Amino acid sequence: MDKFKTLRDEAYEANMEIKKNKLAIYTWGNSSAFDPDKGVFAIKPSGVDYDLLKPQSMVVIDLEGNIVEGKLKPSSDTKTHQVLYKEFSKLAGFNIRGITHTHSTFAVAWAQAAKPVSVFGTTHADHGTEEIPCTDFMNAEAVQNNYELETGNLIVQTFKKLNLDPAFQQMVLVAGHGPFTWGKNAAESVYNSTVLEEICKMAHLTLSINPETKPLPEHIIKKHWHRKHGKDAYYGQ
Amino acid sequence: MDKFKTLRDEAYEANMEIKKNKLAIYTWGNSSAFDPDKGVFAIKPSGVDYDLLKPQSMVVIDLEGNIVEGKLKPSSDTKTHQVLYKEFSKLAGFNIRGITHTHSTFAVAWAQAAKPVSVFGTTHADHGTEEIPCTDFMNAEAVQNNYELETGNLIVQTFKKLNLDPAFQQMVLVAGHGPFTWGKNAAESVYNSTVLEEICKMAHLTLSINPETKPLPEHIIKKHWHRKHGKDAYYGQ
Amino acid sequence: MDKFKTLRDEAYEANMEIKKNKLAIYTWGNSSAFDPDKGVFAIKPSGVDYDLLKPQSMVVIDLEGNIVEGKLKPSSDTKTHQVLYKEFSKLAGFNIRGITHTHSTFAVAWAQAAKPVSVFGTTHADHGTEEIPCTDFMNAEAVQNNYELETGNLIVQTFKKLNLDPAFQQMVLVAGHGPFTWGKNAAESVYNSTVLEEICKMAHLTLSINPETKPLPEHIIKKHWHRKHGKDAYYGQ
Amino acid sequence: MDKFKTLRDEAYEANMEIKKNKLAIYTWGNSSAFDPDKGVFAIKPSGVDYDLLKPQSMVVIDLEGNIVEGKLKPSSDTKTHQVLYKEFSKLAGFNIRGITHTHSTFAVAWAQAAKPVSVFGTTHADHGTEEIPCTDFMNAEAVQNNYELETGNLIVQTFKKLNLDPAFQQMVLVAGHGPFTWGKNAAESVYNSTVLEEICKMAHLTLSINPETKPLPEHIIKKHWHRKHGKDAYYGQ
Repeated sequence: MDKFKTLRDEAYEANMEIKKNKLAIYTWGNSSAFDPDKGVFAIKPSGVDYDLLKPQSMVVIDLEGNIVEGKLKPSSDTKTHQVLYKEFSKLAGFNIRGITHTHSTFAVAWAQAAKPVSVFGTTHADHGTEEIPCTDFMNAEAVQNNYELETGNLIVQTFKKLNLDPAFQQMVLVAGHGPFTWGKNAAESVYNSTVLEEICKMAHLTLSINPETKPLPEHIIKKHWHRKHGKDAYYGQ
Repeated sequence: MDKFKTLRDEAYEANMEIKKNKLAIYTWGNSSAFDPDKGVFAIKPSGVDYDLLKPQSMVVIDLEGNIVEGKLKPSSDTKTHQVLYKEFSKLAGFNIRGITHTHSTFAVAWAQAAKPVSVFGTTHADHGTEEIPCTDFMNAEAVQNNYELETGNLIVQTFKKLNLDPAFQQMVLVAGHGPFTWGKNAAESVYNSTVLEEICKMAHLTLSINPETKPLPEHIIKKHWHRKHGKDAYYGQ
Repeated sequence: MDKFKTLRDEAYEANMEIKKNKLAIYTWGNSSAFDPDKGVFAIKPSGVDYDLLKPQSMVVIDLEGNIVEGKLKPSSDTKTHQVLYKEFSKLAGFNIRGITHTHSTFAVAWAQAAKPVSVFGTTHADHGTEEIPCTDFMNAEAVQNNYELETGNLIVQTFKKLNLDPAFQQMVLVAGHGPFTWGKNAAESVYNSTVLEEICKMAHLTLSINPETKPLPEHIIKKHWHRKHGKDAYYGQ
Repeated sequence: MDKFKTLRDEAYEANMEIKKNKLAIYTWGNSSAFDPDKGVFAIKPSGVDYDLLKPQSMVVIDLEGNIVEGKLKPSSDTKTHQVLYKEFSKLAGFNIRGITHTHSTFAVAWAQAAKPVSVFGTTHADHGTEEIPCTDFMNAEAVQNNYELETGNLIVQTFKKLNLDPAFQQMVLVAGHGPFTWGKNAAESVYNSTVLEEICKMAHLTLSINPETKPLPEHIIKKHWHRKHGKDAYYGQ
């Protein structure tokens, strides 16, 4: 089992962050880690409690959905991950290497309300210059056809329709369901899930305090994004 | 005391989950475990702090309400459990084997508001295809007569009136009081209490964000339910 | 220092519950324990962090406000406790023996909103049959005169005006300030502070879900109160 | 490295309180400690996780922004601290010696809503007699010019415009961004951040319960302030 050890370890660590950061209860949620060179990703097994997870429990899947390694059934959301790994590389011009799906309370509430989350402050702008998009509700045909794969397609279509680049916009809400986030590795994807939950909580409170709140001025959004991202970034070591 | 050891252990474990998952403070709340072959259930003693509970503290009761074993007074809600074990087997065509009652904050708030909880998302649909029902307020005569037994009757009547099957709908709100949940064993009943609290919190936030939120489309509700339940379920190992 | 050891221990334990139950941060809040035979109460010293408290830090005060024992300055709210111990025995026909004041978040919010808290559910009714009263704002003269003593007077006047018996109604909100609770001993007073916080949170959420929520029907309120209190009580061991 | 050991230790301790009191997640937020005799302050390094911080990680900076000691890059908000240390001494007539910036949820929500926080209760009045001010949104020119330095200038201008004395008003919200607080040392600055978060949560809940809530009467505000501050203070030991 040594060939995929690093990948399994990375996926395991990200999954354990879901529990540690209280982004899901019981067996809910899942993280995966992708290796584009090997063309496979490691993902949480379906319906296993976080307390029982081990690095060896991770299931290794290729981009056609075949189990390459692992004794357990992979997450029921595996095909959503598969579609995003495949399609986002085309949209972004590079590979994302980690995806996380949670049922975190405030992000789910926004997804259930089927509302995108405006950029109300610098906490949001530090992580994206656009509102967090929310997909449409999936139609009956797509649900019947191949639900989890179509969830991936729905996200991809939403990004195309809104002309968003998944390299920069790394969070999405699936209407009536919940959040998916991604990043340059599995750790960044679960970091983005944690940040998204905080952004969603802050946005809800902001509108409770002042329902007329306008989005942050564009020049502050841009400034905060460029403090942390791109060639002129100066945040961090 | 060996005859009911397994049953007492099961009830004890479920009661301790109430505290661990912060579904009640102090001595509030109670779980029970039912053995239909022996015709008895084990339940938390009345008014005992969770930190002082032991498996041996559980009180074993038959379906006529007689204490079969145990030195302590059983939960003041014992007759509600008794009615549900008796009547739900008739409605469901099989025996439920665990019941939990809590005072979890958001579920109580919905019960106090006397509002059923719509299916706003997949977190809910994973656990039921219908809104969480809320009973009417109990009338004065029933309250005077036999309050806890009538609480059971009120729940059963609500299920009959709404044509709900307790095999599938395993959560209810008692108006002005709080939640009761059940399942195939005591562990599932307290799992359902934990999930209900999360559903109630998400539904409250959803309506705060968008008071016009419509229930999830029926085809998504059905899909999520059948992912986890019935012969075509494919969630979990 | 042996004469008041039991009283100091009791006050210490109650104060530590304030921190454990997250009813105040830093040095805020205070509990006291009263011995009517000795005519003294033990109270938290002023401005001391809970982590530094010891049973010996408690200050022993008589009902005229003299320090009987203790090296530290007593809580700045000492005179409020003093007035309540003195005056409530007249109103209640017996002595309360413990008082707690906290800055718990939801109780303070109701006090700041200067609204009494209606009996919306059985969680409330288990602990009182009336709404949680809220005092008026103290006038400028009383504030200048003897603020903490007048806080006690304000609470007593509120109880007289509303014809409430402090033996049964053991919680009050002081407008713009926060909650005071009491009981048959210091432990019950801090228990009541914890319950009040939960009641205030539930009431806030209830009105958020349904702003038209009516109080619980009187027959259910009475039933729940009498399950736990008086000669026909049957809750607990 | 002994010359600034005390200052680094003080800054380190304050930064660790940010994490302990849950005022920011991951690497967000920063505290500094100022020594006016040496003309330098010690501040958190940029983008370092709290779990990895050590007293030696703190960066020592002079009031012109030069790194006097330290191997790491200082916080990206360093220039904001620098401006406040410089300018507040002129406004206050004495030196503040500690500053903290967090992303605490409720304070950020008020900042995003761009609303000052009224004095609704004694919890607020114990820490200030005025509403928590909120700056305007920074204009595009200032953002382009020198964002973090201009954030300091914006705070100073807000204090001048509102005729506030930073010796007494030790908390501010920067519109669309979040809170800055200060005090006589770094420990007091992070204490003020914790209190501000609690005040912001209470104020939000107060207005949820009663949107018409008026500020606390002036005579109660003054009384509570003078219980804790100035020559007639009598709170604490």
